[in-house]
Amino acid sequence: MHTDFAAGPVAALDIGGTKIAGALVDAAGRVLHRAQRPTPARESGETVMRAVEEVLAALAASPLWDAAGAVGIGSAGPVDASRGTVSPVNVPGWRDYPLVERVRRVTGGRAVTLVGDGVAMTAAEHWVGAARGHDNALCLVVSTGVGGGLVLGGRIHPGPTGNAGHIGHVVVDLDGDVCACGARGCVERIASGPHLARRALENGWRPGPDGDVSAAAVAASAHAGDPIALASFERAAQALAAGIAATAALVEIDIAVVGGGVAGAGEVLFAPLRRSLGAYATLSFVRDLTVVPALTGTDAGLLGAAAAATRARDGGAWAASGGGEGARGGS
Amino acid sequence: MHTDFAAGPVAALDIGGTKIAGALVDAAGRVLHRAQRPTPARESGETVMRAVEEVLAALAASPLWDAAGAVGIGSAGPVDASRGTVSPVNVPGWRDYPLVERVRRVTGGRAVTLVGDGVAMTAAEHWVGAARGHDNALCLVVSTGVGGGLVLGGRIHPGPTGNAGHIGHVVVDLDGDVCACGARGCVERIASGPHLARRALENGWRPGPDGDVSAAAVAASAHAGDPIALASFERAAQALAAGIAATAALVEIDIAVVGGGVAGAGEVLFAPLRRSLGAYATLSFVRDLTVVPALTGTDAGLLGAAAAATRARDGGAWAASGGGEGARGGS
Repeated sequence: MHTDFAAGPVAALDIGGTKIAGALVDAAGRVLHRAQRPTPARESGETVMRAVEEVLAALAASPLWDAAGAVGIGSAGPVDASRGTVSPVNVPGWRDYPLVERVRRVTGGRAVTLVGDGVAMTAAEHWVGAARGHDNALCLVVSTGVGGGLVLGGRIHPGPTGNAGHIGHVVVDLDGDVCACGARGCVERIASGPHLARRALENGWRPGPDGDVSAAAVAASAHAGDPIALASFERAAQALAAGIAATAALVEIDIAVVGGGVAGAGEVLFAPLRRSLGAYATLSFVRDLTVVPALTGTDAGLLGAAAAATRARDGGAWAASGGGEGARGGS
Repeated sequence: MHTDFAAGPVAALDIGGTKIAGALVDAAGRVLHRAQRPTPARESGETVMRAVEEVLAALAASPLWDAAGAVGIGSAGPVDASRGTVSPVNVPGWRDYPLVERVRRVTGGRAVTLVGDGVAMTAAEHWVGAARGHDNALCLVVSTGVGGGLVLGGRIHPGPTGNAGHIGHVVVDLDGDVCACGARGCVERIASGPHLARRALENGWRPGPDGDVSAAAVAASAHAGDPIALASFERAAQALAAGIAATAALVEIDIAVVGGGVAGAGEVLFAPLRRSLGAYATLSFVRDLTVVPALTGTDAGLLGAAAAATRARDGGAWAASGGGEGARGGS
């Protein structure tokens, strides 16, 4: 095998508060090789970096590594792509941590591209998921937190620092409860899994004999018809719909793609979400907006990081969907 | 004078529910010639079009007309720039009205560019106003309604239909009062001049002997220290701040430029606006956001329409600020 980087795979890192995942991904979005370590999130910054290095070492053990000329990173935010640093809320040892420079050094000077995890998920959905072929889209992850990213005019819009599309901290209830970010009534404060479960408990929902009080347990009750569980999903859907409608009014999108654990609840979320969107998205240019589930699942972060690296390598700087396909045939 | 279009002025139309203004504007943003007619807003679509034709005829009487090879239109919304049609809420005779084609026909086949009035004001502020030199900005008009537009990555972002930046219908109070658009708790429902004045009256504010119950009268009371008037401005500022913070979280902006009649109230609006923005815009990448008054005043619509026409004529398709300046010296 020769090292024709433009035709080869790329290396991808998905860095979250729980795990650090790595992969070699080809130009068609296929994962060729994987590695993973738990994130030592409460340890020092250097200990966290050692876990990243172990993942990279495991990828480098693949015979495909030499052909992977670029590295993409999707990281829990906030990130600062303009400076190459990350400050993930759940990894206190990393504050303005120069992750791009560190990864560049341990990968023999490879080109490294950094984006926030919401932008990464969006890149994945635009590349091989539900936003494929859409020039103006919002993609959301509704999970422990709520994040997102934007496709505008056929391109990913990461914004100057790589955090654009951060729908979790759009204020939809200006007199609402104080959010962890310090503001009030953010989408995340109403729609995230933990807040969805907390609200159900506060309103009288009780877990089963296993004591599971997660959003997934509330979802199971909702599917069984429990009115309190259904109401908690309804409220989450309302907040998401207001945030999606706001996004449509601000940048004109025609589709919203919703992924993450809470979206896994299916129709108990999506049915009220479509209903609320009809109530909030009323202007002529936002009325045709549709909302659909994400397709890329748990690999979204890896695929999005790979998309970022592929686009940067091919000079496309987040070119329109399909832009990376020219790289396919050459290896 | 020869007709070197690329060096000449452009014709601009600013179409609102009250007046139809026209101007010839040079490449430096100077108004060379003006015309204006009241909008016969309750009349038939053809009657409204005749008023537009009269404005254009008055412009055509100028010796500079022959050099003006392009026409820009900023219109009350909603517009559909992709189809060249307008449906201004306050001009019921125009619904999906083919304004671009009609203006093209009566101007001898000149190139016509259409944008919404919020986008036009933003183009003006980016060209010669407070957003000049900023690559990522939100500009707002707070008046009878609330509109706006976006600069992203150094370019105006009109969106596919020319309505992007429509901050007036961003939902900031998801359980709030029903807005004219049918949604609830929109920024406009809380911050527009009429709603600001209505709220003051409902809370016990009383007008002076002249009986003036406009937002300007409430502003005068607020400047005199009236607590109810001040509270109504404070509430408007809170809604605007939540909407501006939402925009920053979604697309990463570093400045918000606020114009329109209500902004003319000055510090009774801007002081609580800055304070509320500090409370709602808490994330690291939005924290440095500043908010300033607009500079282009009542000519914003005309200058923005001229900017749109100039950019389109020069092939710049909303190029970065300063992009039109190459056209200066040639005439």
